[in-house]
Amino acid sequence: MHLIGYTANMRSQHLQDIEKRFRLLSPLDNRYYFANQSQFEALSLYLSEEAQLQYCVKVELALLKELGAYFTVSPNLIEKSIAECSQLNISEIIEVEEKTHHQIRALITVLKKHVDPSLRHMVHLGATSSDILDTAHSLRIKHCFENIILPQCIRMQETILTLIRTHAHTPQIGRTHGQFAVPMTYGHFFAEYASRLGNSLQSLIDRSKEFVGQLSGAIGTYTAFCLFHDAPRELETRVITSLGLKVSEHSTQIASPEPLARFFLELNIYFSILANLVDDIRNLQRSEIGELYEFFESEQDGSSAMPHKKNPWNAEHIKSMFKYFSPHIQGVYSDLISEHQRDLTNSASKRFYSEYIAGFFDALIRTHKLLESLRIDTNNSAQNLALASEHAYTEVFYILLAASGHENAHTLIKKAFFEAKKQQKNFVDYLEEYEPSLLIIINKTIESFPAKHYFQNARDILKKIASYSGLSSTNSMKIAQNQQEQLDIIKQEYTITNDENK
Amino acid sequence: MHLIGYTANMRSQHLQDIEKRFRLLSPLDNRYYFANQSQFEALSLYLSEEAQLQYCVKVELALLKELGAYFTVSPNLIEKSIAECSQLNISEIIEVEEKTHHQIRALITVLKKHVDPSLRHMVHLGATSSDILDTAHSLRIKHCFENIILPQCIRMQETILTLIRTHAHTPQIGRTHGQFAVPMTYGHFFAEYASRLGNSLQSLIDRSKEFVGQLSGAIGTYTAFCLFHDAPRELETRVITSLGLKVSEHSTQIASPEPLARFFLELNIYFSILANLVDDIRNLQRSEIGELYEFFESEQDGSSAMPHKKNPWNAEHIKSMFKYFSPHIQGVYSDLISEHQRDLTNSASKRFYSEYIAGFFDALIRTHKLLESLRIDTNNSAQNLALASEHAYTEVFYILLAASGHENAHTLIKKAFFEAKKQQKNFVDYLEEYEPSLLIIINKTIESFPAKHYFQNARDILKKIASYSGLSSTNSMKIAQNQQEQLDIIKQEYTITNDENK
Amino acid sequence: MHLIGYTANMRSQHLQDIEKRFRLLSPLDNRYYFANQSQFEALSLYLSEEAQLQYCVKVELALLKELGAYFTVSPNLIEKSIAECSQLNISEIIEVEEKTHHQIRALITVLKKHVDPSLRHMVHLGATSSDILDTAHSLRIKHCFENIILPQCIRMQETILTLIRTHAHTPQIGRTHGQFAVPMTYGHFFAEYASRLGNSLQSLIDRSKEFVGQLSGAIGTYTAFCLFHDAPRELETRVITSLGLKVSEHSTQIASPEPLARFFLELNIYFSILANLVDDIRNLQRSEIGELYEFFESEQDGSSAMPHKKNPWNAEHIKSMFKYFSPHIQGVYSDLISEHQRDLTNSASKRFYSEYIAGFFDALIRTHKLLESLRIDTNNSAQNLALASEHAYTEVFYILLAASGHENAHTLIKKAFFEAKKQQKNFVDYLEEYEPSLLIIINKTIESFPAKHYFQNARDILKKIASYSGLSSTNSMKIAQNQQEQLDIIKQEYTITNDENK
Amino acid sequence: MHLIGYTANMRSQHLQDIEKRFRLLSPLDNRYYFANQSQFEALSLYLSEEAQLQYCVKVELALLKELGAYFTVSPNLIEKSIAECSQLNISEIIEVEEKTHHQIRALITVLKKHVDPSLRHMVHLGATSSDILDTAHSLRIKHCFENIILPQCIRMQETILTLIRTHAHTPQIGRTHGQFAVPMTYGHFFAEYASRLGNSLQSLIDRSKEFVGQLSGAIGTYTAFCLFHDAPRELETRVITSLGLKVSEHSTQIASPEPLARFFLELNIYFSILANLVDDIRNLQRSEIGELYEFFESEQDGSSAMPHKKNPWNAEHIKSMFKYFSPHIQGVYSDLISEHQRDLTNSASKRFYSEYIAGFFDALIRTHKLLESLRIDTNNSAQNLALASEHAYTEVFYILLAASGHENAHTLIKKAFFEAKKQQKNFVDYLEEYEPSLLIIINKTIESFPAKHYFQNARDILKKIASYSGLSSTNSMKIAQNQQEQLDIIKQEYTITNDENK
Repeated sequence: MHLIGYTANMRSQHLQDIEKRFRLLSPLDNRYYFANQSQFEALSLYLSEEAQLQYCVKVELALLKELGAYFTVSPNLIEKSIAECSQLNISEIIEVEEKTHHQIRALITVLKKHVDPSLRHMVHLGATSSDILDTAHSLRIKHCFENIILPQCIRMQETILTLIRTHAHTPQIGRTHGQFAVPMTYGHFFAEYASRLGNSLQSLIDRSKEFVGQLSGAIGTYTAFCLFHDAPRELETRVITSLGLKVSEHSTQIASPEPLARFFLELNIYFSILANLVDDIRNLQRSEIGELYEFFESEQDGSSAMPHKKNPWNAEHIKSMFKYFSPHIQGVYSDLISEHQRDLTNSASKRFYSEYIAGFFDALIRTHKLLESLRIDTNNSAQNLALASEHAYTEVFYILLAASGHENAHTLIKKAFFEAKKQQKNFVDYLEEYEPSLLIIINKTIESFPAKHYFQNARDILKKIASYSGLSSTNSMKIAQNQQEQLDIIKQEYTITNDENK
Repeated sequence: MHLIGYTANMRSQHLQDIEKRFRLLSPLDNRYYFANQSQFEALSLYLSEEAQLQYCVKVELALLKELGAYFTVSPNLIEKSIAECSQLNISEIIEVEEKTHHQIRALITVLKKHVDPSLRHMVHLGATSSDILDTAHSLRIKHCFENIILPQCIRMQETILTLIRTHAHTPQIGRTHGQFAVPMTYGHFFAEYASRLGNSLQSLIDRSKEFVGQLSGAIGTYTAFCLFHDAPRELETRVITSLGLKVSEHSTQIASPEPLARFFLELNIYFSILANLVDDIRNLQRSEIGELYEFFESEQDGSSAMPHKKNPWNAEHIKSMFKYFSPHIQGVYSDLISEHQRDLTNSASKRFYSEYIAGFFDALIRTHKLLESLRIDTNNSAQNLALASEHAYTEVFYILLAASGHENAHTLIKKAFFEAKKQQKNFVDYLEEYEPSLLIIINKTIESFPAKHYFQNARDILKKIASYSGLSSTNSMKIAQNQQEQLDIIKQEYTITNDENK
Repeated sequence: MHLIGYTANMRSQHLQDIEKRFRLLSPLDNRYYFANQSQFEALSLYLSEEAQLQYCVKVELALLKELGAYFTVSPNLIEKSIAECSQLNISEIIEVEEKTHHQIRALITVLKKHVDPSLRHMVHLGATSSDILDTAHSLRIKHCFENIILPQCIRMQETILTLIRTHAHTPQIGRTHGQFAVPMTYGHFFAEYASRLGNSLQSLIDRSKEFVGQLSGAIGTYTAFCLFHDAPRELETRVITSLGLKVSEHSTQIASPEPLARFFLELNIYFSILANLVDDIRNLQRSEIGELYEFFESEQDGSSAMPHKKNPWNAEHIKSMFKYFSPHIQGVYSDLISEHQRDLTNSASKRFYSEYIAGFFDALIRTHKLLESLRIDTNNSAQNLALASEHAYTEVFYILLAASGHENAHTLIKKAFFEAKKQQKNFVDYLEEYEPSLLIIINKTIESFPAKHYFQNARDILKKIASYSGLSSTNSMKIAQNQQEQLDIIKQEYTITNDENK
Repeated sequence: MHLIGYTANMRSQHLQDIEKRFRLLSPLDNRYYFANQSQFEALSLYLSEEAQLQYCVKVELALLKELGAYFTVSPNLIEKSIAECSQLNISEIIEVEEKTHHQIRALITVLKKHVDPSLRHMVHLGATSSDILDTAHSLRIKHCFENIILPQCIRMQETILTLIRTHAHTPQIGRTHGQFAVPMTYGHFFAEYASRLGNSLQSLIDRSKEFVGQLSGAIGTYTAFCLFHDAPRELETRVITSLGLKVSEHSTQIASPEPLARFFLELNIYFSILANLVDDIRNLQRSEIGELYEFFESEQDGSSAMPHKKNPWNAEHIKSMFKYFSPHIQGVYSDLISEHQRDLTNSASKRFYSEYIAGFFDALIRTHKLLESLRIDTNNSAQNLALASEHAYTEVFYILLAASGHENAHTLIKKAFFEAKKQQKNFVDYLEEYEPSLLIIINKTIESFPAKHYFQNARDILKKIASYSGLSSTNSMKIAQNQQEQLDIIKQEYTITNDENK
């Protein structure tokens, strides 16, 4: 924004542009646009009204190409017409639609102007508007995923995998119910999200490959095509697959809506996992916990009342976006229902799927930025773990006692622990004094079991408590490796696909 | 759009503007803006990011005014400062925020530039950002309701009341479960919505009067104010009520979120009733029913495949908006929860309430337009009623028989009706032949009961079936009158209030 | 459960009963029944299928009474019939319904058996099933609220008011974003919920008084009544108001569904506030925070793996119930839409409103129990506040500086604070060394402003930081008083109303 | 219910049982139980509290078996203990839980009583409660799907496939926006649902195979297992896969919740398609349309006011269940979020998933019953199609004209059609009179294009309009075949799997 040669005039223009944007109604177009300017402009290529029109042109031309071939028009002539249409300015369409109030009819009118006169009657021939609109809609959401969402998910996954590798052995106290449980490592903490997000990403990819289009006419019965074409179902297959979509097994005026719905349901799963992640990060930033920190810019203000405040506002923002957008899924389900070969009550609602994607994407890039700048306070982490160490005792003693063959180990240890606490005694001291036989068994069991890899004897436990983290490190490294492999396959596949899309 | 002197240049500028808009992400800013251009620009005065900034200025100045008075600054000097600040350009604030990343701090910086130097230190003194932001948010939603939504609801209510009065006596067959029931009138049909929408509007007004603001500092305890002010709670009351809001009984960093939530919950009730109304209208437009018609422009296209089609697309559009926006209510509930004197997870989500209002408003004006242009096909209505008339028989006969003292009237009539149908006989003929005694009772009962106002005898029923509509007409006229009175009171109140807001 | 004379046989019967219950499908009927046995049995009087039948009888008899009067039957004879019907066993109805598959027809058949023969034909005369079913449904939900929910809300409100009074002065650190802010008291913490829950309770009461019933026949036009009655609308008013409900201004086959919906929307607001409260309590139980504790029974187990664990499971349970039941509200909105004088798609869904109430009630009594047994750890509270005290400095200094007339107080203090931190210096020491003039201003301002009630000088602040809690105590005591007064009015009103209901 | 030897005593017992059931709170346990008695008892084997306990036993025993093997206990001794435990009465567990308030600890206590003394200490050794509870929960939902839901889905799919085959050629008018479009067949109507439901069923099966369990201890780090076992991850794999589940790649105290969520999201997709199907069926039963009929029992009553009424109440009931249960999906998403190695806020909510399944299943069997008894009124269908035939003209003429090379066919035909209508002329007559050249082109095009398979000339169209249904028949037969093949594979697979589960 602050380039060389940036003049006062440019500055003023810049501010005027902002002012204009600030008058828009959607936070996605005013406030959050400015938080993600270049990325939202990239999104616009798939999610805006302009994009929808451009994708409709794409679908019409795919149909024109196949009809031309069927009617044995020379390939050159077709290609020339297609080339010209691909460059038409959407303002031409807008101009016609202002009169006819039917976007697809306007589009047809404009295309007819740009194609070779001999092809004019073939434009849209046999199709119904939904064939074009729905296919275009599926296609641009697919491309938006492949070209914008997926690469960002990949980048974030790599950041998480790096966090695992860096912190596989950094100790942290595990918690359940917000209460200290037993020790673990940050590797284990991050591996949860690498695994869940990685698997959800794989599901998203799987779902995106199932997107369907249709070219089946008024009510999905190909009536119009049947009048002039020998094999309408084959025509549909050629057109739809040439665009990179699958053909709907059955369509009415609309293709089966489930494939698109499944994609959004999975997107909301991914979003939920993000929300879980930032909740965890947010809570670990509590003043009393202080294990993690978001990065703050030096001039940034946290509070207009309390000058010192540094708030976990990125994590909060992401959660807030989730709270707003997650219920939209109910709308996705509503859109599965369309009466009698289609009603139009999914038309306006479907347009807003773009907003869901933009809202998700805003949260996604924010989460990535948050993770990239995340700082672990190892001092506080160690201190919290130390506070918890006495608690970890109880699991170890109970298990060792039980493993040695003791029937009521849980009850015994629980009772002893609370008694020791009551007497304000160290737990091992207490056992030595009141239950010396138990302590002997425990020490013996340590020697003869894998427990010996952790501790030499009961007294040793407190000192080495941080190492009592089970498979935290090895398992998280393993997950990092698996997920990296999965990711590499995806990256390989989509380098190629991305080129094809362009 | 097509004014005299509209040059090619203006045309081109117009199209460029559209193109720019078409690149925006939200359908509210691209497509639906163009469907409601002037109205959406009016909305923007309350719902845009610019509006939020302007309302924050309003709140800061209300505080400044009271602080000035407390610190015995001369009223003239305060007024002068306020006057100047009221005209500041929001681009000044934007310019500062680009550096500090904290909108309220930026606002304060700019205000300090514009007020008299002797007042600078009083700007925002004692307040926390939320005091300003939340109060501004409540205030602009209140004003948006009073100045935009409410007048439109009033206009629509008047249209419905006119429809009742015009069609209080126009016959229509009543239906339950989509099945013919007994006759009624269009007055009864419209009176349902006059009553439900009218009562919901009253609730909206009631809720809008409960909006709260706060000026209670960091965590709602007035700590900062207490340092320099004798009576912070009184200060808060003066500032907040001067803006037209109520003071929250208790606030943390935020005021009680319930009043705002209740308003949106009621707005969604109103929206649901609209959805019910357009569902009814949509179904009455089915080809087989054909009782109602939406208005179509003459050049408008209904289908790109079937040139003859005229679809109930306005009704469908409204329902579709409802399907998308209604689940947002879940987000309103989520925003009621804020941990420990407030977390920030309601910040982004609350910004999107503007979208809900815009979506609702789009549906509202569309419904109004639909109702204004609605055509009743009285021929088809009469024809459907005629088809149903034989069915209405059964209720009349059963009731007359029962009223005469017959114990098993329902069972007898039901059996006879299906038997008559089986024999393909007119029901009265059948009764005459097989159950002559029943027919005699029925005829006698007619004579001695209020039934005689409708029919003279059993044979008479079929001819006069349309008049067998109970209290359809009188009741709907009564409701029209009640609702008109309620509306007149509202109109009287808000002429005044509207002026005060400006 | 362990009474004297409790024999092995009784024990075995008890276990068999449990086993039978454990085979039911709904957690409300199996698991959660046992957690709230007597309360759920009280609920059953209003929410079960049996209750619905009994309330239908109530409505039919109210109609019969008025019809009898209209047809000038002797009051004694009517009363005798009503008395007998009031005692009928619902198994009689069930037996008939098993054949006819229509509950209201079965009910009518049975009532006819029990009334005086001369009244038989008047049973249900003119009514349609929905008149009975919907009116009964509204009535039993109203009674359930008045007799079960409301008294429990009152009990809980009293517990919270006691908590405020007891802890109005107990210090706690205030937090925003999970970060230390400025000091407050537990009184302020509890006052938030007294205010929000108290006001929501008042709204619930207001909503419950708006419940409507109808008695308007097949499609709400009183056609059948008109055949034999002079003034059907008056008849309806007498019947419905005699039951304690309002008459719907307009009804189709169903009354306006909004009043019932508004009640449930408010119930979900109350539930959301409960969820907020237990989230706060849950987080204050985190191991690192430790300010609050749920009560545990001595033999209770927290974890099968970690014998020492004491988990905030009541708070978690309540939140979990909220997570499950809150989205049901979407169904309440769906039920506002009923096509053409009614479709039946709200019939099954409305039956499940009982579940919402039961789920809410389970959470309500659990929250009450939780609050009653809640323990504040004042040591940990004081310790957390001490940790935060340095932070509170910044607000005080910034405000004092600003109040003294300093223009850039916020920026200066923020900068100085982070510089002092960097140099690991006490903030006052730092100011003394680097900004002595500021310190002088601050000290002077303390003297000449209300701040002197808190501190004598800047150095004094840290020592007296707990007292820097603004209006925490006085305001919370004030809210306690207001809410107590509001509660006393409610209690007075409902002692009377409750008697009337019985 | 009416068996020989059914005595008065049995009758009275039967009624008492009903009365008891009628006192339960959930419609699933009272009203809807009676509508689906045997099926709901089958469900209870998987969804009740008893079922949960029994599945917990199953999981504990699977662990015990592997631990026994690891500790080289004789297989016979293990098998004997397992056999004895498999038969324990859950009332034993209940009795202990009444004291300890911890179900899993109670279960452990009881199991220890029943296993060989030498195995006692191995019961639950190393596990945490969630390992058992969550694994049991996943397993019983998987079994419930495989044994109850899936077979019913298969039965319904077969009914739909039969409907396609029977009615592949039965004409029906196609509709969009509730308006007549072009002709199709009932085959096309049913094929939509065969395809959508069939594909959703396949997805459900795929999802059900991804269910995971875990056996990873307190926070998913295997700490306890590591103390006494060489390879805890292998132990987990053996136990979990022996139960038929997959092992979660990563677990905290809980396994990845996504696989279970995905199953329910898909179940709600299936439910949405059912809702769409019954909406279609319901609307086709409208009095004015009358193409389809639900079956009614002869003694059944439709309305207590209008004796003749036959309402589409099954379709309405199914839709109503969908309206209530569909929003529960929001709760499924909420349950994806669990803080810091797990909080317990998904515990109560997850118990209610059983209700969703029961509600879905009620709708599923009702839909099946509805489809099995569905009657097509071919007279009304033909009559509606005839009414529409003139409309179909326009598509045919427009396409033929366009296919012949005419550029503005759509505009011309649209204009001509409305002109003909205005003049109340038959469309072909009109063309002959005013646009004879067009008619010539149309007739020529018919001859030289595949259109000739439908009509010989323009005049011929109206007579043969029903045959103008494009690929309705052939495509629907093709879909029936594909879906049958898919179904046969499923049936083959699950005959085997079902046996394994038992």
